[in-house]
Amino acid sequence: MISPKKYAKAAKIPPKGFKTSNDFFNYVFKDKEMIWMGQNTNHLHQDNKINDAMIDCVESREYCKYPPPEGFPELKDLVLNDLGLQDDFEILITAGGTESLYLCINNILEPENNMITCDPGYLIIDNFASRFADQVISVPIYHKECNYKLTPQLVKENMDENTKLISLIDPLNPLGSSYTKDEIKEFAKIAQENDIYLLHDITYRDFSREHHLVAKYAPEHTITIYSFSKIFGMAGLRIGGIIATPDVLNSVRSILINDLGTNVISQAGAIAALKSKQEWIDDIKNQTRKNQDIIKKAVDQVEGAFLPVYPSDGNMIAIDLKETGIDPQVMADYLIDKKIFIRQGAYTSKLFGDRYIRISFSVPEYQVKIFAEKFIEACDRLRPL
Amino acid sequence: MISPKKYAKAAKIPPKGFKTSNDFFNYVFKDKEMIWMGQNTNHLHQDNKINDAMIDCVESREYCKYPPPEGFPELKDLVLNDLGLQDDFEILITAGGTESLYLCINNILEPENNMITCDPGYLIIDNFASRFADQVISVPIYHKECNYKLTPQLVKENMDENTKLISLIDPLNPLGSSYTKDEIKEFAKIAQENDIYLLHDITYRDFSREHHLVAKYAPEHTITIYSFSKIFGMAGLRIGGIIATPDVLNSVRSILINDLGTNVISQAGAIAALKSKQEWIDDIKNQTRKNQDIIKKAVDQVEGAFLPVYPSDGNMIAIDLKETGIDPQVMADYLIDKKIFIRQGAYTSKLFGDRYIRISFSVPEYQVKIFAEKFIEACDRLRPL
Ligand SMILES: Cc1ncc(COP(=O)(O)O)c(C=O)c1O
Ligand SMILES: Cc1ncc(COP(=O)(O)O)c(C=O)c1O
Repeated sequence: MISPKKYAKAAKIPPKGFKTSNDFFNYVFKDKEMIWMGQNTNHLHQDNKINDAMIDCVESREYCKYPPPEGFPELKDLVLNDLGLQDDFEILITAGGTESLYLCINNILEPENNMITCDPGYLIIDNFASRFADQVISVPIYHKECNYKLTPQLVKENMDENTKLISLIDPLNPLGSSYTKDEIKEFAKIAQENDIYLLHDITYRDFSREHHLVAKYAPEHTITIYSFSKIFGMAGLRIGGIIATPDVLNSVRSILINDLGTNVISQAGAIAALKSKQEWIDDIKNQTRKNQDIIKKAVDQVEGAFLPVYPSDGNMIAIDLKETGIDPQVMADYLIDKKIFIRQGAYTSKLFGDRYIRISFSVPEYQVKIFAEKFIEACDRLRPL
Repeated sequence: MISPKKYAKAAKIPPKGFKTSNDFFNYVFKDKEMIWMGQNTNHLHQDNKINDAMIDCVESREYCKYPPPEGFPELKDLVLNDLGLQDDFEILITAGGTESLYLCINNILEPENNMITCDPGYLIIDNFASRFADQVISVPIYHKECNYKLTPQLVKENMDENTKLISLIDPLNPLGSSYTKDEIKEFAKIAQENDIYLLHDITYRDFSREHHLVAKYAPEHTITIYSFSKIFGMAGLRIGGIIATPDVLNSVRSILINDLGTNVISQAGAIAALKSKQEWIDDIKNQTRKNQDIIKKAVDQVEGAFLPVYPSDGNMIAIDLKETGIDPQVMADYLIDKKIFIRQGAYTSKLFGDRYIRISFSVPEYQVKIFAEKFIEACDRLRPL
């Protein structure tokens, strides 16, 4: 049995051949042949409106000025409209969903509190929570019984009088599980009845088949985290936002970090992205659905491998390798040699990192086909005798 | 006598006619006729290398990927070379000097510590310090006796056994005062002898006539804060960095926020900016020197007005209005009506906000001439009888 600790540690060690993780990331970034399925970024955009808006912004040299600190009003309105949360809500534009998560977790949690998260999950949330709370209750959810997600039932079983914040990543990175309307309503009720907060991270919302905002059911108990990194294909532009009621947002304002605002060019791109969204979103969703099917077919051919959640409502999926006997780390190393960047489970799990790999599939179809082929090949070669 | 509290408060109230400060900033940003002397941004760049590099980056769509989390190695090396700190130092690229300041202040200060800053000064530093330290000792320096700067002598007089961090803004926003080599050496000695840290904020370094890095004299006791916002004219791109020894930087790494890195386009611009710096820096420095002289001549014509620090080693200067009887807020309001954006003292001082206005002068010469004319006119009209 491989120890979970080993995997947690492995997530922090640079891949072999690299002095630091930073050097590794520079290598994968710079290598133009690298097939980028290791971060949930979106490489499918063809539309030029986002690019054009950013180029105009560069040429105007308006970036020599500081933008309004909370975001351009036009962008703020567009995001609220995108979510149908125009009334009763405010938004703060930030340098990515990451900065949004940090500010909210910092703002809500007091030293005596605990926060409920799930494993697998997006571990930086646990990391941030551990800086401000007494305890992070990371609920194991890698089980069929709970449908591989943090259910309202699991939340009830794990919360206590010090619970102040519940993390709902929806769809969930890394598994792609998401919530029904009824579940979302149940979460809303839990938050209201206990006067606690839901951190609704909707980074992958636009890839899902259906999606429900808990902010609509428990407005005063919800903080919604928005990101331009995924469906919009703008991960390297570092832009996102926090949506909440004025009361909650005022409280966040008291612990702001970047009082000089968010990148002007990113905001210009984000405005164009929201305005053109209806023109390109179907193509991107269709392509990711198709890509996901290619992965499914490959996995079906490998004895012992399976998809815990299928279809995934995100742009990533986990492939369970436990029964194949192949170490996810060994699989990741094998594929990186073939110029395919994927992630071993340890990046998104402390408990189940030895079981799965995570594959992002918002990349061109031909790349997914190469992955499928090399994955089958890898399973043949790496499987213990 | 006008109360300092009134001025501290005024800094947070949106100018009349605007619901929020954000709306005010959006207005000044969007108005193409606005003369932008209210933030220390640089509007003088003509060179196209920075723009070209950013446009290439947009067109490559590489921004759909996350960059290496600590910054592209090429950029990191260029910054260290720019400072002559290649050996023994490391750098972390961040979303602006602001994020750098936050991370360092958070990292160094323990709840029992105090931090020494100065007033006038860059108040977000005090704000950050107040979140983590027991006390912020803001030393009044708006006096001829100390040459309008936090001297080694003043630091010694104000420090105690709980002092852990000293903020050296050099050149100083808002006054433009800066340090001699001997003073820098003295600070180095203070830090080493007391085993405490110097936060050397060199945001305005490249505008100064001479500049000395305290990191060279007390490497293990110095954290250097770098910004691309000023000489590089890239304020709206939100990029900067932290330079320190590996030990200190490792400690900062433990409390990182943006683990997904800094804007890819900004980094492309920053790389081009550092590579082309020698081609344009003299023109920008000469123009700012010339602009500063225009302001000096105007101030000399106004009875009661004077420049506490002249020449300024930054791209901004303070004009003292106390003896004219004109309220700095009233002056700022008068000028914004003429489409000239400047800052009342309250933005950079809790104690002396009623005394001065701050003017940035890295804008085209014709705009400085308009300011000079309107400033003299304003003094005539606003002076109490
Ligand atoms: C669940 C989740 N939230 C937030 C983020 C951060 O997104 P951003 O790029 O906007 O900081 C990610 C990135 O992978 C994520 O998976
Ligand atoms: C002294 C000082 N430090 C840091 C900053 C922040 O710069 P940045 O734009 O890099 O966040 C400023 C901005 O005005 C400043 O005056």
